[in-house]
Amino acid sequence: MTRYQSLADDIARSIRQGLLRPGQRLPSVRQASAARKLSPATVFQAYYLLEAQGLVRSRPRSGYYVAPAAQRLPPEPDTASAPRGESRPVDVSALVFDVLESAMAREIVPLGSAFMSPALFPLARLGRAMAHEAVHLDPRSTVDDLTPGNAELRRHIALRYRVEGVELGAGDLVVCNGAIEALNLCIAATTRPGDAVLVESPCFYAALQTLERHGLRAVEVPTHPREGIELGALEAAIRRHAPKACWAMTRFQNPLGASLPEAKTRELVQLLARHDLPLIEDDVYGELHFGARAAPPAKAFDTRGLVLHCSSFSKTLAPGYRIGWAAPGRYTQQVARLKLTNTLATCVPAQLAIARYLQRGGYERHLRGLRKTLAQQQAAYLDAVARHFPAGTRVTRPDGGYFLWIELPPGRDALALQRQAAQRGISIAPGPMFSAERGYGRCLRLNYGHPLDARIEDALATLGALSAAPPA
Amino acid sequence: MTRYQSLADDIARSIRQGLLRPGQRLPSVRQASAARKLSPATVFQAYYLLEAQGLVRSRPRSGYYVAPAAQRLPPEPDTASAPRGESRPVDVSALVFDVLESAMAREIVPLGSAFMSPALFPLARLGRAMAHEAVHLDPRSTVDDLTPGNAELRRHIALRYRVEGVELGAGDLVVCNGAIEALNLCIAATTRPGDAVLVESPCFYAALQTLERHGLRAVEVPTHPREGIELGALEAAIRRHAPKACWAMTRFQNPLGASLPEAKTRELVQLLARHDLPLIEDDVYGELHFGARAAPPAKAFDTRGLVLHCSSFSKTLAPGYRIGWAAPGRYTQQVARLKLTNTLATCVPAQLAIARYLQRGGYERHLRGLRKTLAQQQAAYLDAVARHFPAGTRVTRPDGGYFLWIELPPGRDALALQRQAAQRGISIAPGPMFSAERGYGRCLRLNYGHPLDARIEDALATLGALSAAPPA
Repeated sequence: MTRYQSLADDIARSIRQGLLRPGQRLPSVRQASAARKLSPATVFQAYYLLEAQGLVRSRPRSGYYVAPAAQRLPPEPDTASAPRGESRPVDVSALVFDVLESAMAREIVPLGSAFMSPALFPLARLGRAMAHEAVHLDPRSTVDDLTPGNAELRRHIALRYRVEGVELGAGDLVVCNGAIEALNLCIAATTRPGDAVLVESPCFYAALQTLERHGLRAVEVPTHPREGIELGALEAAIRRHAPKACWAMTRFQNPLGASLPEAKTRELVQLLARHDLPLIEDDVYGELHFGARAAPPAKAFDTRGLVLHCSSFSKTLAPGYRIGWAAPGRYTQQVARLKLTNTLATCVPAQLAIARYLQRGGYERHLRGLRKTLAQQQAAYLDAVARHFPAGTRVTRPDGGYFLWIELPPGRDALALQRQAAQRGISIAPGPMFSAERGYGRCLRLNYGHPLDARIEDALATLGALSAAPPA
Repeated sequence: MTRYQSLADDIARSIRQGLLRPGQRLPSVRQASAARKLSPATVFQAYYLLEAQGLVRSRPRSGYYVAPAAQRLPPEPDTASAPRGESRPVDVSALVFDVLESAMAREIVPLGSAFMSPALFPLARLGRAMAHEAVHLDPRSTVDDLTPGNAELRRHIALRYRVEGVELGAGDLVVCNGAIEALNLCIAATTRPGDAVLVESPCFYAALQTLERHGLRAVEVPTHPREGIELGALEAAIRRHAPKACWAMTRFQNPLGASLPEAKTRELVQLLARHDLPLIEDDVYGELHFGARAAPPAKAFDTRGLVLHCSSFSKTLAPGYRIGWAAPGRYTQQVARLKLTNTLATCVPAQLAIARYLQRGGYERHLRGLRKTLAQQQAAYLDAVARHFPAGTRVTRPDGGYFLWIELPPGRDALALQRQAAQRGISIAPGPMFSAERGYGRCLRLNYGHPLDARIEDALATLGALSAAPPA
């Protein structure tokens, strides 16, 4: 399955790291095939994928060359963030809701949305699985499949983790109403009001809202835009603030797209374990890797039950079904009990539908297609950002997920840009949504999960023009 | 639809109040038909229903007589509860979970369960509605129908309230994962940790768990087993404890089955409004009335937006679908925002399935059948309690819902009985689960939502025998 993806991934990395320069010729298919011990067909597939991603161009009868677009792309942000890092109560929810509510209508261009296009999911096939389960529902399952959830679904989820090297059984999982409920319950299981929690800087705004709602304090930790949370700074924050938990996304972090290298993930788990500190791992984008595979999640290295791992099918298979889960380690009973008091249970027909879909196969094939589509969309959006945004803009090029993090040139104000864009029917997610300190005032998150059509091209042009000069 | 039910209800009330004595002959069909200005067929239907409920017996060629069983029934508890009524932190969750977890297996006799038999719901027809919606799902609805919920579903729910005289629009409703999420969010919207909340005594244990989880204090208010929370005591508790909210079930309260008469409900709303105090109204059993209709919920009298009314389809139509709602009055935006941070949204195909079911009709017919079945099951269980339980037992005869509240003779210990019953594969819900003060030590709640088969008859005989003498 993944040989050609693996090769394409290698080459893409070389291009991004500047080892292969724009205009440079790739080895011929014959050369690469011999050197890598791969079939010519595999090499062709890899080159084809790179071309679809906009990273290389073919010239008839001549071969493949690194695309000039790769040259024109704005630079990536390349230094770790530097939050003030004090422990502070969180007060972002009003801002987050104002921004989200201004972006809800269908006619708004969804660049600020947290959702990718629903057309990218196998909703028809999933619907047939649900139709079967709904019509053949065993009435007893309306009681049996309440919390902790349908056993067959949990078994399938556990099996998928095994393939990734994470040793989980069905009994380690609590099915929840999306990852967001799982994360809420994991925070409730590990903290009490007034406690400090370490978060990445910037971090997903829903994490901050969860802390705010539970009366917790946030401590932002420096985070590198490609390699994630900084471990030295993390340890310093532990010593300084005596937090009760750390909340992080180890893979394709929202909003940066950062992923921890495997060794760093292992070190993160060990570091937190030395301080007996639970890690709440939000892994909802882990399956959306463009390379052959992603580094394992932190849960893979959890020997002490201190990693409360949460994920869902909402970003990969079944938006709107609201099926997520927690693998809360030593907190499993607590989380299951909190689940009972929070929502009692998760929609049974939706659980059965996904269990049936997984049992009948096709999820891997769907994921391969989805990853490829998202990689292509990223290339197209990067290209548009390169064409429309002013000099001095920086933009990430994550290896997965569907968000770009854009740092505008000095003097720009992302909150002002958000308001100007909203007036023009365009949503963006301004940087201060992602920071308890209200940092990242000239940053924004762009969703590239929708195919780049003319409307979105226009919207990106508008955003670029609005960003061209600091507001008067 | 309801003339015969209304007549049956009148007669049943006369029997319960002792105006008609066991063995007494009912008026002939001809007499009743003339006196009440009803068709003979309507009178026949009413007598037939009363017979099915075990309240009257027919003697061929002679007429209908009040059944001897009506004589043999243990007396109802008839005085309001008398809790100590101090403001206290809540610590019942561990007890509740211990009891519930001991009762989860399918082979346990579910007398302590909170669920009625899933065979009583139109799951096949609902499943066909879901199959249709799942297969024809508009991908955009996976975004559009997130919180506050599918507009068509909310419109149908609002229409049902209009029929009851409650003026609600679709915009007043927030769809939630069952009533339990709605109640949690309403508590979060109206209180802060440390606040006091007034509750009925006894009250549904999930209310106590919600208070416990939110760090709130409970104040138990005297409650009458037929007529619900005592308004004089309620006002005294308001003056004494300055609570921030009151949580109550105005119709078929769990566990007592009490329902407030209409005038009392109105007075309750006015009393709380005078103190500017929100009422969190849990109305999940409101549709399960055995009489022609139930008194309106408190929401019907809410002129100031202070009633946060919550209900669901879980007890009436769609167990396991997890579709509930809140009508939170002036707190609607707050509750919708809390919903976004708690679980983001509610399963979209499940919302669409119920909207379609409601649109196509048949819900009223299903409810009529369900109410009749539950009334018959109540009669059968009351009869079994009368035969098996010791003298001195008291038992409620609610006009709706599916719970009996049993007060054992002095010296009995419901927690000990629960443990003895559990060893014999029988679950019950002991009284102390329903009280922050751990009161009601010789009371228990019995679920009559499962048809009384031989296994349940045996279990009731066992419980009766175990209750015959105080434990050594």
